[in-house]
Amino acid sequence: MCEANAYLLKGEQEELFLEKVDRVIPQNDQLILENIFGQKKIIKAHIKELALVDHKIILERNDQ
Amino acid sequence: MCEANAYLLKGEQEELFLEKVDRVIPQNDQLILENIFGQKKIIKAHIKELALVDHKIILERNDQ
Repeated sequence: MCEANAYLLKGEQEELFLEKVDRVIPQNDQLILENIFGQKKIIKAHIKELALVDHKIILERNDQ
Repeated sequence: MCEANAYLLKGEQEELFLEKVDRVIPQNDQLILENIFGQKKIIKAHIKELALVDHKIILERNDQ
């Protein structure tokens, strides 16, 4: 399985937001994330970087 | 390896833009994509959807 973990940037730190993410759908100023377990999270953020070989999705809040 | 192929939406069609993408970095109104072979492409587009289990990154041009 080739899902990735989504991390939220907090200053210099990366905090795990949702693990084993399958789908990410940007919608307006939000991101809808869904993982392989069917768990769904919505956040007002944008994708700062994908590093798929490292299984990482880096998110940054829109109000930063 | 858990890279994904990047497809560019053309109407209803998905056209392969870059295969085996490792990194995607949004920068201003562009996306910088880099694949596992070190090939780099820059496009004025945004991420429309990630479907990582299907190894797909769907891009849409900004002028659409």
